[in-house]
Amino acid sequence: MTSIVTAAVILIGDELLSGRTQDTNLKTIADFLHPLGVEVREARMIPDIHETIVGTINALRAAHDYVFTTGGIGPTHDDITADAVAAAFGKTIDVREDALAILRPYYEARGQEINEGRMRMARIPQDAELILNPVSAAPGFQLGNVFVMAGVPSVTRGMLQDVGRRIRGGAVVHARTVRATGVREGDIAEPLGALAKATPDASLGSYPFMRLNGAKTEFGTNLVARSRNKDAVDRCIEAMSDIIRAQGGQPEIDPGV
Amino acid sequence: MTSIVTAAVILIGDELLSGRTQDTNLKTIADFLHPLGVEVREARMIPDIHETIVGTINALRAAHDYVFTTGGIGPTHDDITADAVAAAFGKTIDVREDALAILRPYYEARGQEINEGRMRMARIPQDAELILNPVSAAPGFQLGNVFVMAGVPSVTRGMLQDVGRRIRGGAVVHARTVRATGVREGDIAEPLGALAKATPDASLGSYPFMRLNGAKTEFGTNLVARSRNKDAVDRCIEAMSDIIRAQGGQPEIDPGV
Repeated sequence: MTSIVTAAVILIGDELLSGRTQDTNLKTIADFLHPLGVEVREARMIPDIHETIVGTINALRAAHDYVFTTGGIGPTHDDITADAVAAAFGKTIDVREDALAILRPYYEARGQEINEGRMRMARIPQDAELILNPVSAAPGFQLGNVFVMAGVPSVTRGMLQDVGRRIRGGAVVHARTVRATGVREGDIAEPLGALAKATPDASLGSYPFMRLNGAKTEFGTNLVARSRNKDAVDRCIEAMSDIIRAQGGQPEIDPGV
Repeated sequence: MTSIVTAAVILIGDELLSGRTQDTNLKTIADFLHPLGVEVREARMIPDIHETIVGTINALRAAHDYVFTTGGIGPTHDDITADAVAAAFGKTIDVREDALAILRPYYEARGQEINEGRMRMARIPQDAELILNPVSAAPGFQLGNVFVMAGVPSVTRGMLQDVGRRIRGGAVVHARTVRATGVREGDIAEPLGALAKATPDASLGSYPFMRLNGAKTEFGTNLVARSRNKDAVDRCIEAMSDIIRAQGGQPEIDPGV
C-alpha cells in the first residue's frame, strides 16, 4: 500500500488579506501536486509579520510532508519571508554567491543596476538549495521540507518547474465529476448520503451551482467522487449517475483524469 | 484612540484545497469588513474534517474579535460545519423551529419536498442567532463571535447583508495606491524602504505586476500605503509619487477611498 503524502500551502502578504489581491497560487500549487500524489490538506493566508511567518512555518512543517510558501521574497522592505524562514530553521542568512551568480548577468544584460534592493534577492538561508526562476531570475529556495517561492503568479508557475524532481509523492487521488443540471442538492441528499456510507474507500462531494445562461438562471449540482482506488471512483460515478436519473436529470460525466 | 478590531476567515471545503474551486469569498468578506473598521488578519482553508473544523474555530475565535466561516452548511452528508461549530462551543444541535419556519414556506411555494436532506439545513446550534439568506432561504447562524455562512458566493454575499448590524468595528484602515508603469520594484526598493522607516504610522507595500498590453508585456509596480491615519496615507502617496518621478516614471494615483 502506498502512503499518503500531504502538503500545506502558506500564502504570505497583507494584500491577500485586505482583499486587494485575489490569490490564484493555491490552485496552481494544488494542480501541480495532484498528479505527483501529494494532497494539499491546509492553506493559510497570513500577513507580512515576522513572528506570524516563523510560527506558521514551524507549525506546518512539523504537521505535513511538504510546505509551500508564496510571496515576500522580492527586493523591497516588506519582503521578509526569506529571513523568517531562516529564523524558523535557526539558520543564518546572507547574500549568497550562487544566487548572485544568477542575478548579476541577468541585470547586466538588461542594463539594470544591482542595487541594495536587488542584492536583497540574493539573500538565501545557509544550507538552502536554490529554486530556479525562469521568468525573472531571482531564485526561490528549499530548506528541509519547505519550498519558498515568489508571489507573482507567472513566477510561481515558473519556479514549480524546478520543484517536481524534489518531491517524493504518494498514491494519486483520482477524482471525477458528474454534473446534474436542473437537479437540486436537496433532492439527492438522501441517496447520496447512503452511497457515501456504502463506499467508505471513496469521498463524495456535492457542490451546488447557479449560473446565468442567457437571460435565465440555471441551477444544478456537481457531484465529485475522490479516492486512491480508481475503480471505486468509477463505481461511484455510475451510482451517482443513477441517482441523478432517478430525479429525472441527465448526468453529464466528465471524461475523467 | 479607537481600538483595532481583527477578524479571521475560515474557508471550509475539500474542493478549495484540491484546486477544483477557486475561492472568492475571502475577498468578499474582506471588502465587506474594511469600511466597518475590521481587519482580516488571517485566513485558513481547511478540509471537511470534523476535528479540523472544531480545532480551527476554537483557535481562531480566541485570537480574534470575529470569525467568519464559509461552506459546509448545505443539505448533503459532506455538510458538517454546523455540527462542528456546535461541538466547538459545547452546544447541542437539532432542527430548530425558527429555521424550519423559514424553509417550509420557501420549499412549499416552489413545490419542493422538505425531505431529510433539506431538514438538515434547519439544524442550528442551541443559542445561535440565525443569519438570514435572501438568495436561497436556508439560514446561516451566529454563535458568540463566530458567523457561519454558506459557501456559494452569491449566498455568502446575501448573508453578509444580515451581518453588518452585529459588528462593532474599530478605526478604519485607509489605503491608497499609486501605480508606476515601467518602473521596477528593484529600482525603488531603497528610497521606499527609507520612507517606510521614516513613517512608522503607515504600512507601505510594493506589488510588482506584469501584463500583456496588445503584443507587448508591460511591467511596473503598485505602491500601497495603509494607515488608520488618513493624513499619513496622503503624505506617503505624495512621497511615493516623488520616488517614481525620480526614476523617470509617471505616477498614476488612484482616486482614494
